[in-house]
Amino acid sequence: MVSRQPPLSLYAAVRKMSTFTGQADRHRGVVVKSTIAATEQEKSAEFGPKLARSLIKWSADEQVHLVWFRIARQHAHWISELAKNNFLFHRTSPDGNELWMYKRLRGESTSTVDSPHTYTGAGGLVIRNDHLLVVKEHSIPFWKLPGGYVNSGENIGDAAIREVFEETGIRAEFVSLVAFRHVLSGSFNCADMYFVTNLRPLTFDIVIDKEISEAKWMKCEDFITSPDVGEHSRFFVKTYFENSKNGITIKANKTIHQFTNKELINYTASYDVPTNSSSDV
Amino acid sequence: MVSRQPPLSLYAAVRKMSTFTGQADRHRGVVVKSTIAATEQEKSAEFGPKLARSLIKWSADEQVHLVWFRIARQHAHWISELAKNNFLFHRTSPDGNELWMYKRLRGESTSTVDSPHTYTGAGGLVIRNDHLLVVKEHSIPFWKLPGGYVNSGENIGDAAIREVFEETGIRAEFVSLVAFRHVLSGSFNCADMYFVTNLRPLTFDIVIDKEISEAKWMKCEDFITSPDVGEHSRFFVKTYFENSKNGITIKANKTIHQFTNKELINYTASYDVPTNSSSDV
Repeated sequence: MVSRQPPLSLYAAVRKMSTFTGQADRHRGVVVKSTIAATEQEKSAEFGPKLARSLIKWSADEQVHLVWFRIARQHAHWISELAKNNFLFHRTSPDGNELWMYKRLRGESTSTVDSPHTYTGAGGLVIRNDHLLVVKEHSIPFWKLPGGYVNSGENIGDAAIREVFEETGIRAEFVSLVAFRHVLSGSFNCADMYFVTNLRPLTFDIVIDKEISEAKWMKCEDFITSPDVGEHSRFFVKTYFENSKNGITIKANKTIHQFTNKELINYTASYDVPTNSSSDV
Repeated sequence: MVSRQPPLSLYAAVRKMSTFTGQADRHRGVVVKSTIAATEQEKSAEFGPKLARSLIKWSADEQVHLVWFRIARQHAHWISELAKNNFLFHRTSPDGNELWMYKRLRGESTSTVDSPHTYTGAGGLVIRNDHLLVVKEHSIPFWKLPGGYVNSGENIGDAAIREVFEETGIRAEFVSLVAFRHVLSGSFNCADMYFVTNLRPLTFDIVIDKEISEAKWMKCEDFITSPDVGEHSRFFVKTYFENSKNGITIKANKTIHQFTNKELINYTASYDVPTNSSSDV
């Protein structure tokens, strides 16, 4: 009687010939995720031959232009073999536990494979009765606006509100964007964009964070004239007052992207007849 | 006579006890660069013990809060050992040949160790005699503004000028920023900021790039009303005309940062009495 089960050695041979299965993306890429693939392929010694077979398979497929590997930190032993096979480092996950590597097999993709190179920050210009909320950091002896980095997935206004609360204990709400600055090559050779928002305070009692050394409500006209103030903070505050006088703000409007259905925020400069200022012609 | 040279076995012992030498940074970090350190420590087997000794040394030094390794792709075999020692992935170099990993030894640093998570793009709103420069991509059947990603170290205006030239062959110069949109979670779970600039054309003959399928000068009023136009491009063009009417632009001003001496660009909304429009009260 013939066994329906092939002998174990045949299983082993078939298994040896296996290749990685990735998910296709819409840019002619194939994405292999180590947390899925590694369950069947944990041993380092098996990785190289399987990768070699997989590259032969993908190279023969004209639909595959790019191969991606998402490597979880616990599978970091894959990285050395991928690097030997001319995979490039692409980017890391925000939590530091995943690395993306890629290799271009053919063609010039219309989609970028650059990694993001811009940090975004947000500051809060918070005014209460002609007084401005200001902080000093431990290392810099100048008053400045409270603020910090925008988190992954966070919008500019929410980031400014969060940073103002973390640094000063003041709760506030978003009114408008005032201005922003772009440093082309800052920390880690990355670009840095810093967005200054006008926030309306909802509470007034300051509770300072250990990250900063001092915080207080400072008379706006003192901030504009004091030598004890960072030039860039001063510039943004002056810009705010000039634009308020002229009825100009940069407004934020949430909407949905026509093609991707993703939520987005449009920032546009707007003119409104000034309501608070008396005419000063 | 006593030899001045210690015996070779002692040399070997001393060498075995060596630790990595890194460069201190201003955030209480130590940075070890594999392209420098690897000349004396190429073999994989030696890396683990040397790393362990180095971590003991750094952990005993209260001035060291963070340890960084910059690993060149040819030294990718270091990564597995660093991951086992709880180093996290931080970021990659734009050319894909270097990976930064870090480990926090003590304290909470006031400096961020997040990786950048924002892509920046720039588009050009280019008008010539009531006609707007528009393109169609192969995959999307709508007219849109030419544009693409901002390169590392590039400013927004230069990126828009470059993308307009690459896609349409039109040379142009920067006038102002019109508006921008912020997608919080786009490609690769990164945020995406797209800045629309107003550019003045310097040449007029279109030479299209293979990346796009069509380009032409389209009557502005047709762009505003045609169903064959992307909603987001239309929104930006309408914003441009409304703000032109009111004399509002977002200007770019280059300056130098007070503390870091780095060049930066400030973007501020400005009001100028409109020059081109007749009064329409």
